[in-house]
Amino acid sequence: MADLHLVVDRAAGGVAAQIARELREAVRRGRLAAGVRLPASRELARDLGLSRGVVVEAYEQLVAEGFLISRIGAGTVVAPAAGRPAALPVPPGGPDGPEGPSRTPEDPPRAGSRTAEARGAEREREPYHGRRSTAPDLGAFPRERWLASMRRTLAALPAEALDYGDPGGVPALREELAAYLRRVRAADVSPDNLVIVGGVAQGISLTIQALAGRLPRGRSPHDLGWFVRRASRPAPPPGRIRLAVEDPAGGRQLPLLHAAGADLVAVPVDGEGVDVGALAATGARAVLLTPAHQYPTGVVLSPRRRAELIEWAAATGAAILEDDYDAEFRFDRDPVGCLQGLAADRVILIGSVSKSLAPGLRLGWVAAPPEIAESLRLARGELDLGSPVLEQYVLADFVTTGGYDRHLRRMRREYRARRDAFALALGEHLPEITVRGVSAGLHLLAELPYGWDEAAVAETAQDCGLAVEPVGPMRHAPGPPALVMGFARLPARRADATIRALADALRRRPAP
Amino acid sequence: MADLHLVVDRAAGGVAAQIARELREAVRRGRLAAGVRLPASRELARDLGLSRGVVVEAYEQLVAEGFLISRIGAGTVVAPAAGRPAALPVPPGGPDGPEGPSRTPEDPPRAGSRTAEARGAEREREPYHGRRSTAPDLGAFPRERWLASMRRTLAALPAEALDYGDPGGVPALREELAAYLRRVRAADVSPDNLVIVGGVAQGISLTIQALAGRLPRGRSPHDLGWFVRRASRPAPPPGRIRLAVEDPAGGRQLPLLHAAGADLVAVPVDGEGVDVGALAATGARAVLLTPAHQYPTGVVLSPRRRAELIEWAAATGAAILEDDYDAEFRFDRDPVGCLQGLAADRVILIGSVSKSLAPGLRLGWVAAPPEIAESLRLARGELDLGSPVLEQYVLADFVTTGGYDRHLRRMRREYRARRDAFALALGEHLPEITVRGVSAGLHLLAELPYGWDEAAVAETAQDCGLAVEPVGPMRHAPGPPALVMGFARLPARRADATIRALADALRRRPAP
Repeated sequence: MADLHLVVDRAAGGVAAQIARELREAVRRGRLAAGVRLPASRELARDLGLSRGVVVEAYEQLVAEGFLISRIGAGTVVAPAAGRPAALPVPPGGPDGPEGPSRTPEDPPRAGSRTAEARGAEREREPYHGRRSTAPDLGAFPRERWLASMRRTLAALPAEALDYGDPGGVPALREELAAYLRRVRAADVSPDNLVIVGGVAQGISLTIQALAGRLPRGRSPHDLGWFVRRASRPAPPPGRIRLAVEDPAGGRQLPLLHAAGADLVAVPVDGEGVDVGALAATGARAVLLTPAHQYPTGVVLSPRRRAELIEWAAATGAAILEDDYDAEFRFDRDPVGCLQGLAADRVILIGSVSKSLAPGLRLGWVAAPPEIAESLRLARGELDLGSPVLEQYVLADFVTTGGYDRHLRRMRREYRARRDAFALALGEHLPEITVRGVSAGLHLLAELPYGWDEAAVAETAQDCGLAVEPVGPMRHAPGPPALVMGFARLPARRADATIRALADALRRRPAP
Repeated sequence: MADLHLVVDRAAGGVAAQIARELREAVRRGRLAAGVRLPASRELARDLGLSRGVVVEAYEQLVAEGFLISRIGAGTVVAPAAGRPAALPVPPGGPDGPEGPSRTPEDPPRAGSRTAEARGAEREREPYHGRRSTAPDLGAFPRERWLASMRRTLAALPAEALDYGDPGGVPALREELAAYLRRVRAADVSPDNLVIVGGVAQGISLTIQALAGRLPRGRSPHDLGWFVRRASRPAPPPGRIRLAVEDPAGGRQLPLLHAAGADLVAVPVDGEGVDVGALAATGARAVLLTPAHQYPTGVVLSPRRRAELIEWAAATGAAILEDDYDAEFRFDRDPVGCLQGLAADRVILIGSVSKSLAPGLRLGWVAAPPEIAESLRLARGELDLGSPVLEQYVLADFVTTGGYDRHLRRMRREYRARRDAFALALGEHLPEITVRGVSAGLHLLAELPYGWDEAAVAETAQDCGLAVEPVGPMRHAPGPPALVMGFARLPARRADATIRALADALRRRPAP
């Protein structure tokens, strides 16, 4: 039985999160080795003078994140894959646990609410055209606060900062984001192995190019003679890599994956997430996953599968690309930590502000093992010289001043209400449809009864103003007809009428 | 002799620019065919009731742009390459000639001047560290006006606009920039064949990839099964293209060119620009040029060479990549129109705001024949989904409201004064150095006496706070020792003291 040496500050609140953080660190630093059995929750609660529920909550969180394993009759033990020492140091005072104390303690004053209301009224007049089922509510973009961050940035920034930036990203932003990802996503990341990219798409493209051996590994010379002499030599064929993708998977990324050098194999997703046995059988050297909220099924990767995945990657030397898709919006409990926090040497974490703020900002990040991170940085130096710097500074300010946390909290409440209203309305007006994947994210999976025509239903739903996409083209292996339905742009009070209209339209034009 | 049908509005002013514009259009639209002889300037001036100087000015401008050729004894005739019909229509009311009327007729009120002065004082305290010899004065970035454009943009933008944008660029910006490039650069461009990119580097990289056959030519399917089936097929080797570059040429772009698929050949630059005869002998399928102000020699491509280049491209089907480097800053006369305006079917014009505003904005453009423009657009859809949208709207606002023109006018005056002071100080304190390439741009070429050690002199100059680079590594064929010296960040009043300090330091440590 482990002696845990837990230090808990009751006065600070969030005691379960404190315990989870301490245990997570202990596992990462090797103080709690793989297989070590933890005290029973009742026991530890008594030792700490806390209620048992608090300890259970902390254990559950770490089981969900894959740090601990809970087996009936065997108690709670440290997961095998989690025991390896972390490849990257976590600075002291790092993770604060999800939803830790934000730096500005209170919500914004009500001064801006009239403007927000006025804008809300304006939005009502716009037609509800969600082009993608995954899109956030862009009407909620925090324009005043973003502008305020821009004002502060332009007032304070030294002139030098407007020059060509570090192609790997502005240091101030990398620092803020690394701290944020440690705190909220339990990521194992420092500013040095975090690279700023122009969104998840570019992050995935460059990562695959790195894995396929297409990116530079060192600085090239800047000498004209060298390149002229080199021109006569035959160029080697471009590297490719066998990459597993989830089946079903979103279609928009596929051309990008292929162009970056990936030969795709498809691995089925079931109710726990990707099938790791099937994955191992493909011989893939890398896998692209959406563990926080699978697209399109909405499945959250189970603790068991998380552990299996990491074991597979460790045993085969394969890489896991973790598209941290929809991670900010988990409704029924705290967000689960990312896979990358469990195995920073094998997992590449890729995220962006596209769902949390707006896709049009084209700001994202890649947390990767140092040699891959450096490869991405060099590659951008030979491609586009990095992302625009001004909005990197603005985002850093927005995170530092607590604006990002506050916006996420507000949107999480709002999206939860929209999800509830949407799912309720579906249950009431279209009981034939089975709703899945609602515990997180901005979309759900609507499984249609056998025989319904996906494409026809999708078209009808789009005519009703809904953001939906048929799942058929996203599948390799056949599956039941289904739609991805986005609910983020549909105000809760309009959900019932909109879904009723869809139900009416479907009954008028019955699916074959 | 051509009947010109010129319509001149004397009341509007800028009569020479009006005549130049009308003649340019007449040549483009084929009303004035290649070889047609124009009336003598004296004759035309009499017909129009204008002074002869005005007509001469218009003719000279068009000779410099390559539309006309002037030969002793043969008068002024339409250039052979310019006679082909333009591939792209120029909308009515297009080019206004360089420095045409800006949309806000007056310079800004003095309200902001205190802030500007305060910032100026601050700048004085900063050490003068130009990292690149080509860098603009970043302390002059128009922060207040940029913020004002951001405020207007955020107030007016519909929520939809924050979604994924057109990967080829926000339409509003493409429209503004196309109008600007027609007006100021005499480019032959419409919003449809203009693609927004993340700076010149990305523009060149993608263009070479397009020419090398590496970019998609149509939309790929979004179907998982299609890609899984395709994975087993062997991938074709990546295309490469023989690309000529100027000798000497800046070294920083070379790795980028190679990575994009270019096999480099070097073609000498003389006092008129690139040697077209030598270029033709290389068998290159494309050439990358800086016609407005060659880097590093500072040579402006001569009218004769412009015509030869276009003839070479037309005869061989080769492409000309025109890096419109430093084009905004021509001091001794109006900017010469770009090559692309002469042959829009063979020239790809690539520019950015890196010299005019700041490199950190990472905003640039490519004007290309439609199939290449579309290829770039598709490629960004499979790479990074386009540039951030917010600052595209901000730049569009900045151009529309006249802020861009105003800023350029102000900087042109400022840089001219800095160049004058810099060149004067060099002549006075270092008469051994021959100064070249001063008619435009933010740098000059300083040829050192035979036997001086470039690298040592460069180091001494850097120690004196100057932004200089040795030319040696930029050469393929050997040449005299020389430095690129940037003057944009050195205030005119400090030029004399700085150069004197350099001269003193060099005499203390004499070049071998």
